[in-house]
Amino acid sequence: MTSSLTGAEAWSLLTLSAACVGIIINTFHGDGEPLIASLAFSGIAFAFTFSLIRWLGDTFMKAGLKGRDMSKLKKVEIPETMGAICAVVYLLTIIVFIPFPFYKDIVAATSGGGNREFVLERQYVETGRILHRFPHSKLASYLSAILSLQSVVLLGIGDDLFDIRWRHKLFIPAFAAIPMLVVYFVDYGVTNVVVPVQLEPYLGTMVNLGWLYYAYMAAIAIFCPNSINILAGINGIEVSQSIVIGFLLLANDILSLYAAPSSPSPHPATDPHLFSMYLLLPFIGVSIALWWHNWYPAKVFVGDTYCYFAGMVFAIVGILGHFSKTLLLLFIPQIINFIYSAPQLFRLIPCPRHRLPRFNPRTGLLEPSMTQWQKPPSRPVAFLLKLLAGFPLPLIRLEKNGKGEIVESTNLTILNLWLVWFGPRREDRLAIELLVMQAFCGVLGLFVRHELALWVFRQDNRG
Amino acid sequence: MTSSLTGAEAWSLLTLSAACVGIIINTFHGDGEPLIASLAFSGIAFAFTFSLIRWLGDTFMKAGLKGRDMSKLKKVEIPETMGAICAVVYLLTIIVFIPFPFYKDIVAATSGGGNREFVLERQYVETGRILHRFPHSKLASYLSAILSLQSVVLLGIGDDLFDIRWRHKLFIPAFAAIPMLVVYFVDYGVTNVVVPVQLEPYLGTMVNLGWLYYAYMAAIAIFCPNSINILAGINGIEVSQSIVIGFLLLANDILSLYAAPSSPSPHPATDPHLFSMYLLLPFIGVSIALWWHNWYPAKVFVGDTYCYFAGMVFAIVGILGHFSKTLLLLFIPQIINFIYSAPQLFRLIPCPRHRLPRFNPRTGLLEPSMTQWQKPPSRPVAFLLKLLAGFPLPLIRLEKNGKGEIVESTNLTILNLWLVWFGPRREDRLAIELLVMQAFCGVLGLFVRHELALWVFRQDNRG
Repeated sequence: MTSSLTGAEAWSLLTLSAACVGIIINTFHGDGEPLIASLAFSGIAFAFTFSLIRWLGDTFMKAGLKGRDMSKLKKVEIPETMGAICAVVYLLTIIVFIPFPFYKDIVAATSGGGNREFVLERQYVETGRILHRFPHSKLASYLSAILSLQSVVLLGIGDDLFDIRWRHKLFIPAFAAIPMLVVYFVDYGVTNVVVPVQLEPYLGTMVNLGWLYYAYMAAIAIFCPNSINILAGINGIEVSQSIVIGFLLLANDILSLYAAPSSPSPHPATDPHLFSMYLLLPFIGVSIALWWHNWYPAKVFVGDTYCYFAGMVFAIVGILGHFSKTLLLLFIPQIINFIYSAPQLFRLIPCPRHRLPRFNPRTGLLEPSMTQWQKPPSRPVAFLLKLLAGFPLPLIRLEKNGKGEIVESTNLTILNLWLVWFGPRREDRLAIELLVMQAFCGVLGLFVRHELALWVFRQDNRG
Repeated sequence: MTSSLTGAEAWSLLTLSAACVGIIINTFHGDGEPLIASLAFSGIAFAFTFSLIRWLGDTFMKAGLKGRDMSKLKKVEIPETMGAICAVVYLLTIIVFIPFPFYKDIVAATSGGGNREFVLERQYVETGRILHRFPHSKLASYLSAILSLQSVVLLGIGDDLFDIRWRHKLFIPAFAAIPMLVVYFVDYGVTNVVVPVQLEPYLGTMVNLGWLYYAYMAAIAIFCPNSINILAGINGIEVSQSIVIGFLLLANDILSLYAAPSSPSPHPATDPHLFSMYLLLPFIGVSIALWWHNWYPAKVFVGDTYCYFAGMVFAIVGILGHFSKTLLLLFIPQIINFIYSAPQLFRLIPCPRHRLPRFNPRTGLLEPSMTQWQKPPSRPVAFLLKLLAGFPLPLIRLEKNGKGEIVESTNLTILNLWLVWFGPRREDRLAIELLVMQAFCGVLGLFVRHELALWVFRQDNRG
């Protein structure tokens, strides 16, 4: 990778940035439109990330943050952990953005004095604008989101530096979620959940989960980052799946905002979705800049940092926006991959350090990678494996020695499974097919959420 | 350094932690006492930091975070950037601590509903407790402080990894200060300052500095971390000076809290000082654990990360506590060192990469280190240098060649200056002498603040 921008790139980025700055300045006139400002900030974040990835590649390599692409003929070293650049630019962006959704509120507060929220509601009612302003009390929860994201980046960089063990890694997002959970506890503290219609006779309409609700939130925060981190290993897959999920969440926000009744007072479901959009737009901005350099053939690697960071953005948006069930509907391929991987993650089946598909240098195609059994599996395990391999749709491929003992089996990731099912293919084709599958599952998920939710819940929180 | 705790150490730390956990659990009964909880948390933070420094030393070395101690006969490699451990434990501590000063408030808010601050003030008046609870609106500013600290740690680790250039380094704390400044703008926004009595006829009692006030806060945030970072280079000096400043700030808080009138309503000056103590106590806890390993002969290095982190804690406490002028009174040695260093920092005099005193292996003592002049200085500069060197109290030491041209001069740090004045001495003695000087200047500063402030200002904000 050249470490500088080409003339055309430099001019394009400069033009984009200038246009975005213009838009932001424009929002100062009149009431200001945080959503438009957020879009413009995302453009600037894209330009910054794009440039910094170019400029800092060599610096990262010099500091030892580099890796070899194992799925290429020429295994050259390229910069690793470039997701850290994304994350830092992103964090700076959403911090500088704070005055846009929150500023008018202070003006109201200063003039009205004392009781902020009340003054604000009055202002809302008077002007009829219900979409763009946050009550001041939301600031703490916005800041806690930033804190959790920054924590996951800090710990992610630690992981990329120190190569932490699998079992410990799993808990990195749990630590990072602490700020968000603590502030949720202090600031909001609601732990009721709505009971599905079918269970109402037994549980009533609402159930207070108490500390279980915090365990649930922590579980979401642990799952999202790790599930992206284990659906990884081929060029561009980590960033691309995150961008697809990001756009699906945006679509969900837009659907929810449109569906909200346009009453003069702010509907309770609008704030979380605006909150979500403010966090997602710049995320998509920085991710596209990274995608540009990480797509096949990759010029940089994203590092675990990016996977944690991306997963945490989704977890936070889902948790603080109170649509974590919808979020999980968009993570179906990740959930399947996680369940499918479980036997290896929990060491029922040997788990090598890397489980990415094997590159065949003769054909230039990817094939399912195999894990070695140092000693053949025990009778019951062998029986189970053969059952899975013999299934009408085989879920695993086995290699046996002369004695019929299992000596190798495919690594349990859906990337390998895809290759088992559809045969060897080039790296980028595999990525594209999986992304199409991700998008398809996601659209289905959104359909379930927006069309079928009332079969299970008495009331849609959209109104 | 052994990478494990000795039996005695393990038991001591375990006992300390158990006692602290007991104290924290005890604060749940009755009203809870955040200040006592904060002390207990600091004890736990000390124990964690102490253990982690031991356990992770090898891991840091393996990741390339290591350096040689140049001031020893045997220049063995020891772990570097161990301040990062301090910082991460510290951040986790002050995040987990959030519910203690803020929790009761929610109870008030939930029962009263709506107008939080008002309900809270009522509660204060009724119970007469004015010391330990924060109004809920303070949460955003507490979170912004954590965000700024986390940012400086993130950027500091970047600095330790990538060896960023001097000129760029200077601005790391400026970036990190952004979250605090943005939230100050959104949440508080007051930019008035009290005018000294002597200037009142010209300016009035208050002056609104507007954006200049933000520039002033940014300047404090840039100065504190960098000034600690350049008063560095001998074992233990960075941590020790930070601990001394930390204790002086604590003394200032206690003096201010005692002086506040014990009226039933909370005095405006108590909150900032409690805020300051909550941030300082765990800081001192983690710092002592690091000091233990970094004091002569050092078993670990602290890294730039620690200097930025420590300086930022002080800057935040001073800025958000609105006693930045007092803060500067405690930074007198750092201010002198900064001014004294300026000719080298701004390249009027050649500046080598490291300016630490030179170790003389024959005597085992430190001597002033010299910087080489590639070509002799110009006439006016040479004249000035000779003037400084000839002063009754020499401010610099010069080496000349046969032709009387200057070929070497001492590096401009007060560490070297001390050695010029008082002669070569062992590393730890130099550190102790400078710390005594720091403490002496600090006590003098507190005296000026608490006894002489009314000569300059009409009203002491203590009451």
